[in-house]
Amino acid sequence: MQAFPAKDVWMEHRVSYGETDAMGYLYYAEYLHLFERSRSAYIRQLGMSYALVEEKGLMLPVREAGCRYRIPSRYDELIWIRVGLAEHGRASMRFVYQLTDAERSVVRAEGFTEHACTNLEGRPVRMPVWLLELIA
Amino acid sequence: MQAFPAKDVWMEHRVSYGETDAMGYLYYAEYLHLFERSRSAYIRQLGMSYALVEEKGLMLPVREAGCRYRIPSRYDELIWIRVGLAEHGRASMRFVYQLTDAERSVVRAEGFTEHACTNLEGRPVRMPVWLLELIA
Amino acid sequence: MQAFPAKDVWMEHRVSYGETDAMGYLYYAEYLHLFERSRSAYIRQLGMSYALVEEKGLMLPVREAGCRYRIPSRYDELIWIRVGLAEHGRASMRFVYQLTDAERSVVRAEGFTEHACTNLEGRPVRMPVWLLELIA
Amino acid sequence: MQAFPAKDVWMEHRVSYGETDAMGYLYYAEYLHLFERSRSAYIRQLGMSYALVEEKGLMLPVREAGCRYRIPSRYDELIWIRVGLAEHGRASMRFVYQLTDAERSVVRAEGFTEHACTNLEGRPVRMPVWLLELIA
Repeated sequence: MQAFPAKDVWMEHRVSYGETDAMGYLYYAEYLHLFERSRSAYIRQLGMSYALVEEKGLMLPVREAGCRYRIPSRYDELIWIRVGLAEHGRASMRFVYQLTDAERSVVRAEGFTEHACTNLEGRPVRMPVWLLELIA
Repeated sequence: MQAFPAKDVWMEHRVSYGETDAMGYLYYAEYLHLFERSRSAYIRQLGMSYALVEEKGLMLPVREAGCRYRIPSRYDELIWIRVGLAEHGRASMRFVYQLTDAERSVVRAEGFTEHACTNLEGRPVRMPVWLLELIA
Repeated sequence: MQAFPAKDVWMEHRVSYGETDAMGYLYYAEYLHLFERSRSAYIRQLGMSYALVEEKGLMLPVREAGCRYRIPSRYDELIWIRVGLAEHGRASMRFVYQLTDAERSVVRAEGFTEHACTNLEGRPVRMPVWLLELIA
Repeated sequence: MQAFPAKDVWMEHRVSYGETDAMGYLYYAEYLHLFERSRSAYIRQLGMSYALVEEKGLMLPVREAGCRYRIPSRYDELIWIRVGLAEHGRASMRFVYQLTDAERSVVRAEGFTEHACTNLEGRPVRMPVWLLELIA
């Protein structure tokens, strides 16, 4: 596996029927749903939750997202999503992701999401100290 | 076709890849998405929009929904969704739906949704006069 | 709680952002996704999997589905889905579902799905013995 | 607007409730659904359909996808998706996309998808002549 942030979180997932397409594979947009689930899990492991982040008046909308699909996943397969915080600036964060097989040994897809820090009106704001400390 | 409210609205839809499942059919939860789209179209034809309904402080959350699936639809097929307002009480509405083939001649699925009238906090309220007049 | 089949399976679920709607609630079509996930879990607990069912040449397409929505669920909430097999005929099955809060004490929604037994071409067939024995 | 392939196709779309998230915006994974819909429309305008492509034994699975989100879209808004074929090699294609407001004047998001040409077993194959002629 390629370099990945040291602090990572793994999330297990069973591919459901509703996530597959007529090809029999996990549909390509569903990866972004799984990325979102895993980064919520990441934030939860830091002792926070994204719901709480928003209650504190901060939003982290996605500015950019991308995914490279290498090996498809089928219905009922157990897969894992690995997430890490690759970097952050004063008003942005970048998460990276890997989707692997059940043994966590073969990377089937890789992706990233770039997030801005904004207030609830969507205006860019600096990352608050509590968030900086949380992700430090 | 069975009895259907006289005032009906038809909405065309092309089945996308992302809406299908590994069986190659339109996934059963997607029907509720299509019902929602068609009832938004219905409200729009009345000269209102559901977005405006909410701006007026009214919400119409779904209390119950059901669908009978008779004939499946495949990827890339053109289908139609027909919607009508079956009945309404002082604080509720019932929409009914049919999903048909491209010629609008074969009913493939039938469904309904029951809606409550609530304020933005979710408390049940009487249907306002402007809505009663709209749907009259 | 109301009467429920004695043999039940509970599935934990965390509401994701992508499952919510502009009202801030778990969108009504997502319940059918969760029902599907829970009935896959049910079949898996019987020592089978729905993927295997299809490999054996049997499909269990949904003929009818319904859901009664009582209390909404919000982003990031932990909820449970309970599933049981309510009844089965010679060529059909009926699953019932409850969606509860994190403590499994308050039922927020109830639903059902009716399934036909068909071969891979979609023709109705009798329920095979191995399936009858499995669900006995 | 930035440079875009001369041969483009525009697809109209109304943001549905089910496509929004708790922020009130079109959810970030839904853009990939819209991209898929628009590229199906593109292929249809060439006189083909992706369903027919698969019947001819060819698949065009997504190898990579990306999207840059600039301005969010809200429930009930009318938006447009513009699609073009940016380039193609002997065994791959790259589509590009823009999502605009109702007037097609403000680009709210931009994206791309990279596709491989494979047979129905997923093995890479050269782009067949009929497809090369179609997209010429």
